[in-house]
Amino acid sequence: MTKRALFLEDLEVGQTWTGGPIEMSEDDIIRFAREFDPQPMHVDPVAAASGRFGGLIASGWHVAAAVMREFVDSAPFGDTPLLGLKVDDLQWRHAVRPGDRLSVKREIVDLRRSESKPDRGVLTMRMTITNQDGDVAMSFVNLIQIPARGGAL
Amino acid sequence: MTKRALFLEDLEVGQTWTGGPIEMSEDDIIRFAREFDPQPMHVDPVAAASGRFGGLIASGWHVAAAVMREFVDSAPFGDTPLLGLKVDDLQWRHAVRPGDRLSVKREIVDLRRSESKPDRGVLTMRMTITNQDGDVAMSFVNLIQIPARGGAL
Repeated sequence: MTKRALFLEDLEVGQTWTGGPIEMSEDDIIRFAREFDPQPMHVDPVAAASGRFGGLIASGWHVAAAVMREFVDSAPFGDTPLLGLKVDDLQWRHAVRPGDRLSVKREIVDLRRSESKPDRGVLTMRMTITNQDGDVAMSFVNLIQIPARGGAL
Repeated sequence: MTKRALFLEDLEVGQTWTGGPIEMSEDDIIRFAREFDPQPMHVDPVAAASGRFGGLIASGWHVAAAVMREFVDSAPFGDTPLLGLKVDDLQWRHAVRPGDRLSVKREIVDLRRSESKPDRGVLTMRMTITNQDGDVAMSFVNLIQIPARGGAL
């Protein structure tokens, strides 16, 4: 089911969406890290157990990718074409461990129509990813280009 | 082969490392995107051909993950334990397409010893990822905690 397409005019600062849970399994954590981040804390449960985090933790890039997947699946703007422009202040604040269930909160913190190209605008969203215990695991700010109604992005 | 471990005292602003090439195959682009970013421009060559980019392009998070892999493999700091603190100004500036070969430049742009915990410091690196034609595909700034010599991070 495609959700209603939302355009620049439909949005306002303060709007929020919540999503998840994103389930982080040990198998997925190890498989991602073997391909993209093969450090012992991400791929080797035995070595990880005696390491700084006392156990296996997910690659930060895995968490970011899993959050992207949830965004595509939940499609908060329907099928409106979006273009990611920039990510700022991306912080991994709490380790993500096997079995964690992550929830996502997305909030519009700024919204501007382009002065030079008024058929589009830039949406600034703050993303906050929280585990099942309420710890903020990751957060970032995302600047996204979004068309105005009738705009041809 | 493990490279020589580098600590806070071994580093200075302006030091650079280069890495790559990172080869981005169509199979890898589609496989990553099916799992993490299943938008037509990343997973469907036919739909992508008639879309905004005129062909399949890699998910931005795939490019970021591939750059992480190159960092682990090239290990510019040897086996010194590092902790990623923050990513800023992450921009996808030019589409990455099947067959692209990406090179990576890492430059230290700031370096500070912690005042409260002088056994460690924060290293700020600017990462620039360029394709085979010299287009900057992605760039970001990474703040990384690094131990001082003898520090127990």
